[in-house]
Amino acid sequence: MPDTILDAHTSDPVAMGWMQGFPPPDAKRLAWERADHMRFPTHRYAFSHMREFLPTVRVSRGYGPVWELPEALRDDIDGVRFNALDDGRELSWEEALAVNFTDAVLVVHKGTVVYERYLGVTRRDTPHIAFSVTKSFVGTLAEMLIAEGRLDPHALIGDLIPELARSGFADATLRQVMDMTTALDFSEEYTDPNSGIGAMSNALGLTPRAPGYAGAGDVYSYLPTIPKAGEHGERFTYRTCNTEVLGWLVARTEGRRLDAVLSTRIWAPLGMEQDADFLIDSTGMPFAGGGLNPVLRDMARFGEAVRCDGHGNGGQAIAHQAVASIKAGGSKEAFAPAGYQWIPGGSYNSQWWAMGGNHGAFSARGIHGQAIWIDPVAEVTIARFGSHPIAANGAFDPTSLPAYRAVADHLMKG
Amino acid sequence: MPDTILDAHTSDPVAMGWMQGFPPPDAKRLAWERADHMRFPTHRYAFSHMREFLPTVRVSRGYGPVWELPEALRDDIDGVRFNALDDGRELSWEEALAVNFTDAVLVVHKGTVVYERYLGVTRRDTPHIAFSVTKSFVGTLAEMLIAEGRLDPHALIGDLIPELARSGFADATLRQVMDMTTALDFSEEYTDPNSGIGAMSNALGLTPRAPGYAGAGDVYSYLPTIPKAGEHGERFTYRTCNTEVLGWLVARTEGRRLDAVLSTRIWAPLGMEQDADFLIDSTGMPFAGGGLNPVLRDMARFGEAVRCDGHGNGGQAIAHQAVASIKAGGSKEAFAPAGYQWIPGGSYNSQWWAMGGNHGAFSARGIHGQAIWIDPVAEVTIARFGSHPIAANGAFDPTSLPAYRAVADHLMKG
Repeated sequence: MPDTILDAHTSDPVAMGWMQGFPPPDAKRLAWERADHMRFPTHRYAFSHMREFLPTVRVSRGYGPVWELPEALRDDIDGVRFNALDDGRELSWEEALAVNFTDAVLVVHKGTVVYERYLGVTRRDTPHIAFSVTKSFVGTLAEMLIAEGRLDPHALIGDLIPELARSGFADATLRQVMDMTTALDFSEEYTDPNSGIGAMSNALGLTPRAPGYAGAGDVYSYLPTIPKAGEHGERFTYRTCNTEVLGWLVARTEGRRLDAVLSTRIWAPLGMEQDADFLIDSTGMPFAGGGLNPVLRDMARFGEAVRCDGHGNGGQAIAHQAVASIKAGGSKEAFAPAGYQWIPGGSYNSQWWAMGGNHGAFSARGIHGQAIWIDPVAEVTIARFGSHPIAANGAFDPTSLPAYRAVADHLMKG
Repeated sequence: MPDTILDAHTSDPVAMGWMQGFPPPDAKRLAWERADHMRFPTHRYAFSHMREFLPTVRVSRGYGPVWELPEALRDDIDGVRFNALDDGRELSWEEALAVNFTDAVLVVHKGTVVYERYLGVTRRDTPHIAFSVTKSFVGTLAEMLIAEGRLDPHALIGDLIPELARSGFADATLRQVMDMTTALDFSEEYTDPNSGIGAMSNALGLTPRAPGYAGAGDVYSYLPTIPKAGEHGERFTYRTCNTEVLGWLVARTEGRRLDAVLSTRIWAPLGMEQDADFLIDSTGMPFAGGGLNPVLRDMARFGEAVRCDGHGNGGQAIAHQAVASIKAGGSKEAFAPAGYQWIPGGSYNSQWWAMGGNHGAFSARGIHGQAIWIDPVAEVTIARFGSHPIAANGAFDPTSLPAYRAVADHLMKG
């Protein structure tokens, strides 16, 4: 039976028996060498156990008290119905959990947790890889440094990071990197090993390198080799390499590694309930574009703080101005040509996605179904982990984006 | 300049600049491929950053409050003087810190922290590899299961773990494994790659395997290959493979992995202040003989609970009977032939060292200078991390054992 016809129930990592037994039998073991942590269906176990496959650093929550989220769980969320964007079929929220391979999902309404669900091998206290949701944390850190006057969004990358002075990034502004309007010879095609993202993944060492691999041994020797292709600032093109540059710049500016910056700037101030794990490359620097592994509630806390203009855990944890810049959205004209059919009227800025629509919803988004969805009008934040078989947002957007909107509408009714 | 003549100051990992910079320059990077994490002087950085080099699991502290240790720091500890056991020279406590490459050390007297020191790259919140101090945690878990009647110390290993029924462990009792009086063809010679510990280290994957390596790919396929050599129960011989068997048995008995057992049985009940990291092999099972990475204060909390007959964090966290069995000590007759010249009158039982002397001191001990030292008479617990260049207790025992005794005596005076 080919893996692709396994559905969410038959591919459930508990049902599959991955890593069960002491020790697990050979057939139930996952191995980094086989890239089991990055392919379906084994990734359904691995996405919440990444530190068991790869070197990581801790993002420390410090010693402060936890920011407690009030709870008033509702039993009417599961029945909320919506129509899928692609084929128009009607689904309930609960039915969609299986359709789009949800691992865990939490809904916060007006600051109160109204829905929380852990499936498969996930639990409240298990970190799960956030993939590109990581980018929105990094973008927010950059906006915080801009708000403090420590970074100039108009400065050129070649001036900010001398190692990139002869790369395609050289004459791009920090703002263009943050908004991904750089023009680079780098393709984000996850299934093509010869793509830019394939080369970067090899540099990162996320999966085994081919025999005789002679490419970059780390991200920071790879980034300077990316050439320019076109003119910066004209259109949005999603490229993870932009976030690696941004994470590099945040670390340089703070004089601390990105994990330490994230700890003192976000994890400790927001009273996160767990430390997070952060994947690193061979230099020990975190994978800024996709390596953060938080627990679900901590991802929701971040979303709530951003929804509330930086206010969280009883104080102004994130500068108001930083969040205002995020909430302003990006250029719709720059975004439209990228052809995201499920995000009409959307834009991208500061490593966040403006999702279009009349609620001004915006989102952090990661492959395989990771998301923070913020609806300022409905006062709703949704945090979600997933392990969809396909590494493309188009695979789960049609059954998740309308679900988020439907739940927000439902909650607005009271 | 050969590494061996670097002293503690010249080999200080901050002074050496290891992993400094964003990213660190090539010359300052440490690499798993070069085994930098397991050799001097680079291990002085790596011992408190093991998760950045190897896959790990978390030992969770859970969500409970921290067991707060009262503090009344004293400035007279540094000046306590003693004579080294080997050459008789007089040293102060503070001078000895450099002589024996101390990374961090904490002294608790009657439940109050009276001394705490972090050197090099260590801090209060940085986990550090405990090496064989890990064994004493595992031995304590086994004693807890015995106290509950869930394990019989007289049972034979071959009956308890069917996979070992044809190994050298088969007709050894659980007690013999706990006390390391098994007779096995397994040598604990850290500098010999052909030793038993070398083979086990290869199975574990702690350092890179030689090209063409055809040995075991994990600990649990290696353990059954260890042959018997002599008669069990006659004499103590320190062999880490015993602890791997013990950790395996604890997991099997609890039906949970050792990290989960340690979390619910010790980490959560004792109100540890940080999660710990635990090194694993390719099966995902933790390295019971030496893979635990706690923070110093949590190692001290465990020591304090054992000193206080299992009482800690406001309750009976560890069964009284389990600690009583540990405190009873082992057979001096079985221990003496092993020739530990700095531990006259000592013994070994339940994965703890009885250290001889008139205070009934006992200790958890790990290579490169890890220790929990418990003095029931002086009501003192000392927790210590080290990164001595030499992987043998004999290298630092002469300047650390008498230091512990001298401080205990000093504190008894008031």
